[in-house]
Amino acid sequence: MLQKVVIFGVGLIGGSFALALRQARASASIVGIGRSRQALERALELGIIDVAADSVADAMRGASLVLIAAPVAQTEAILAALLPYLEAGTVVTDAGSTKADVVAAARKALGARIGQFVPGHPIAGGESNGPDAAIADLYRGKKVVLTPLLENSAADVERVSNAWDACGATVRQLTPAQHDTVFAAVSHLPHLLAYALVDEIANKPHADLLFQYAASGFRDFTRIAASSPEMWRDISLANRAALLGELDAYLAQLSAIRAMLAAADGAALEAVYANAQRARRQWTGAIEAAEAARPADTAE
Amino acid sequence: MLQKVVIFGVGLIGGSFALALRQARASASIVGIGRSRQALERALELGIIDVAADSVADAMRGASLVLIAAPVAQTEAILAALLPYLEAGTVVTDAGSTKADVVAAARKALGARIGQFVPGHPIAGGESNGPDAAIADLYRGKKVVLTPLLENSAADVERVSNAWDACGATVRQLTPAQHDTVFAAVSHLPHLLAYALVDEIANKPHADLLFQYAASGFRDFTRIAASSPEMWRDISLANRAALLGELDAYLAQLSAIRAMLAAADGAALEAVYANAQRARRQWTGAIEAAEAARPADTAE
Repeated sequence: MLQKVVIFGVGLIGGSFALALRQARASASIVGIGRSRQALERALELGIIDVAADSVADAMRGASLVLIAAPVAQTEAILAALLPYLEAGTVVTDAGSTKADVVAAARKALGARIGQFVPGHPIAGGESNGPDAAIADLYRGKKVVLTPLLENSAADVERVSNAWDACGATVRQLTPAQHDTVFAAVSHLPHLLAYALVDEIANKPHADLLFQYAASGFRDFTRIAASSPEMWRDISLANRAALLGELDAYLAQLSAIRAMLAAADGAALEAVYANAQRARRQWTGAIEAAEAARPADTAE
Repeated sequence: MLQKVVIFGVGLIGGSFALALRQARASASIVGIGRSRQALERALELGIIDVAADSVADAMRGASLVLIAAPVAQTEAILAALLPYLEAGTVVTDAGSTKADVVAAARKALGARIGQFVPGHPIAGGESNGPDAAIADLYRGKKVVLTPLLENSAADVERVSNAWDACGATVRQLTPAQHDTVFAAVSHLPHLLAYALVDEIANKPHADLLFQYAASGFRDFTRIAASSPEMWRDISLANRAALLGELDAYLAQLSAIRAMLAAADGAALEAVYANAQRARRQWTGAIEAAEAARPADTAE
């Protein structure tokens, strides 16, 4: 059991981590800290944390594990603030959606102490935020990617991995660069594309008419455009190189499809659509098979 | 009450129309006809239709209303087949997702009898198909767009409109060109974009790795890429001019966003994302308000 878990940012991500650890009795004490005193008080009221720390010094005293669950752009400042109080036995991790920039920020902030930072990214979330959105099973059956550094000890990586295990998640490892390439393709680019479509339609002179006839396909396609603009601005910038690469590949794909459409080449269009349908079915089939194979005590 | 409704194609769209009319007691008799004898037998078994017609001549005898619920590319052939049996008192409509091409096909097939054809498009559907997927409330609370022709009589348009009313739908009117521009933007382009993304990812050498980390945002964004490739090939070709226009506007939008990203212009990116989020919230808010305002007897 962990002695003391400290969570920077007790919103959906940090609060759900706290609730899951509490449910699993995985930590003797859970301490919250963050910019918003109101969120901390609310997290106390809801029983998410045991203590709302008044200072970083208090929070960090005797900490076994620290989770930074704040916007990625704040990682460097938070690490710099906790460094003076970072004890030798403490492991720090994060929940940021990008990793190469987080690692660079961590190296800058922590210097020689970088070995105590194990970068992570839980693949879970939601459109709501704040402590009231936190739920104990947010991570159950979800993946968490750790991107360990050469400087990390195996024991420290294991401490972070075990904590996520206790939350019901499946832990995987990638390099920071692999992580950023993968999520640029399957998450960051789709967000950019959805925002781009809704913005473009909203700016047309007949936008009102268009939105009147938008239906369930449009709703699902654009659901991720309901996400926080600030958060996705930060992610887009933090993973700019990989995202530009994916965007360019997609633009080339659209140009090729445009040519098929302009040439009224039905066979070529159908081949693209059919390959996409097949790949997506295979993917959803694999997800369903994995869910069916999950042990009963973790299936909800 | 209608005396006899004839449905060409008793799948999800045609079968659900039949079930809804039956529930509303809006037709004395409902007759099915189509290419697949198996589907017709199944529709009979399920009580969707009263009669599975053996010939177009039998089906059309004394018909009050005919619904063509087949892929848009078949519209011309079906209209040509029914023309010899088209009585003066019969009104024909369709359920195709594109309208300008359907009107052109109808003019070609029906010639001087074009006035008896009232083009329509119910904005409802699903990923399943066939008679087993048909449900009586598919159209409840949904929109149906009619694109009446100058040659249509007001009484004939009203007959089609009343049938959809009986199904619980809200009937609106657009011109065929308006219809096609609107649906190119809010439906056809999103389908093309979703197919394009999944196909592109599936063709990457590390596709397996990418699909392993794709999560709920990707699932919703690409849900429409599970749709029928044949149907969407036909729709893409049938609405080619409007779809090319929308695709070019979207490509211009993506190029502008690419430039923001390349310049690391966070303020510009955030403005696009925030405008999209605002517009989408306004849209979903309007939908929820409309649903809350629906009379209790039509709310399910």
